[in-house]
Amino acid sequence: MTKQELFNQIKKKKSFLCVGLDSDISKIPEHLLKTEDPVFEFNKQIIDATLEYTVSYKPNVAFYESRGAEGWKSLEKTINYLNEKAPEAFTIADAKRGDIGNTSKMYAKAFLENMPFDSITVAPYMGVDSVSPFLEYENKWVVLLALTSNKGAFDFQTAKPTSENDKELYKQVLDKSQEWANDERMMYVVGATKAEFFTEIRKQVPNHFLLVPGVGAQGGSLSEVSKYGMNDTCGLLVNSSRGIIFASQGEDFAKVAGEKAKELQLEMEELLKNKGIL
Amino acid sequence: MTKQELFNQIKKKKSFLCVGLDSDISKIPEHLLKTEDPVFEFNKQIIDATLEYTVSYKPNVAFYESRGAEGWKSLEKTINYLNEKAPEAFTIADAKRGDIGNTSKMYAKAFLENMPFDSITVAPYMGVDSVSPFLEYENKWVVLLALTSNKGAFDFQTAKPTSENDKELYKQVLDKSQEWANDERMMYVVGATKAEFFTEIRKQVPNHFLLVPGVGAQGGSLSEVSKYGMNDTCGLLVNSSRGIIFASQGEDFAKVAGEKAKELQLEMEELLKNKGIL
Repeated sequence: MTKQELFNQIKKKKSFLCVGLDSDISKIPEHLLKTEDPVFEFNKQIIDATLEYTVSYKPNVAFYESRGAEGWKSLEKTINYLNEKAPEAFTIADAKRGDIGNTSKMYAKAFLENMPFDSITVAPYMGVDSVSPFLEYENKWVVLLALTSNKGAFDFQTAKPTSENDKELYKQVLDKSQEWANDERMMYVVGATKAEFFTEIRKQVPNHFLLVPGVGAQGGSLSEVSKYGMNDTCGLLVNSSRGIIFASQGEDFAKVAGEKAKELQLEMEELLKNKGIL
Repeated sequence: MTKQELFNQIKKKKSFLCVGLDSDISKIPEHLLKTEDPVFEFNKQIIDATLEYTVSYKPNVAFYESRGAEGWKSLEKTINYLNEKAPEAFTIADAKRGDIGNTSKMYAKAFLENMPFDSITVAPYMGVDSVSPFLEYENKWVVLLALTSNKGAFDFQTAKPTSENDKELYKQVLDKSQEWANDERMMYVVGATKAEFFTEIRKQVPNHFLLVPGVGAQGGSLSEVSKYGMNDTCGLLVNSSRGIIFASQGEDFAKVAGEKAKELQLEMEELLKNKGIL
């Protein structure tokens, strides 16, 4: 998917919502557990109920891997369903991979080829040759970790150097990675729980899309993120996982998920209007 | 596995060799391709042929994931075979995972519980809460990326700060992570291609085991690594993947892999003797 196509979807759906498919089997409504593939059945109904309000879906691979080969099959079925039912949605394999070149190539094959996601989240620690194999697929994206939403982000990412000549690690990542790909091929993960950083980040990457987790269960604020992070082509994909998909764990889970997605979409519509995008 | 148990194995086998099961299906001998699960059959024969000379096995998860659910089954069978046939071997899931706490917990479940590996490689970028869920399993280990063997290691890991009060990223990782676990629960990845760094690293982590990739195909030297990296309890697991498992791609692949493993074991025996460990 191109950047323009993504922006077109945002304008059409009046939304920059990404629904996180952190489909934990221990939280899935009981009535689904007797179906052949409860996680896939759950995802299918969530996708159907939220698609109108959503421009992106992000399965969190850990929740599938934790179920072994069976989980992997649920993930394969989910991306195939998304590509068939919602080809306009930007799909993100939230896998946080990254290894030496010949190994990253295998991860790229897994998530961009065999399972044709539009993008994959990648960890930057191992540098250029751990990221570049993911960039060899036309119109596919790397979503690189920059400033994550968790407490541990303060351990290395934001550690303040003594000298003003040096930059915090997340800023180094933003700088260096722009040598590897531009804003048509790379996005960055920036946690909503760190809204005060968005102004600084926008100085470095004014035009890039940012994937923003941490709204909802993790405590980030949508309006704060938009205030400091939105640019002329929106430039934001804001993820909500638990707050949507597990809003109800009863038989009405999909209906309630749709309502929660719609609530966020309506907030987003306002924010897009305020910015003059709609 | 405890540190003492690992050291006992090293003394018994006179080896600190780790065999990397980077079992790329496109490189597997042709005669195996007609078996039900070629990758597992390959691994089984490699394990049988090398076990005498090897204290550790490290499947590289990417090569399994790139084959989807089928690959995942090969990996499950491989760890089960290792635990049954070679319970004394230290098993490493080379997965380089790491995410927010609730997600790392799922990865830990996948690799330390469902597939009972002794350890998993973890990326440090996301800090403490991305690593700690892997430390909740008794006698299981985190093998944390510190200084990797690839070219991209120079992008962030070794970037030199201006001020002497600041440390390179890989040194920050060595420092900070010692607050999370000691040398009975944590090892570090240090690439053999960066032998000149071992002296510095041993100042920070004199007692830890280091998992050392990059000997062989990537060009690292075993004697250099041992000279600067070995400590009184050996403290090294040196990995070789392609140099052993694909030394022959004919019907004699397992025999030749055994010979290559034995060659390394004999070198290692000398190095252990020189250090006074044997």
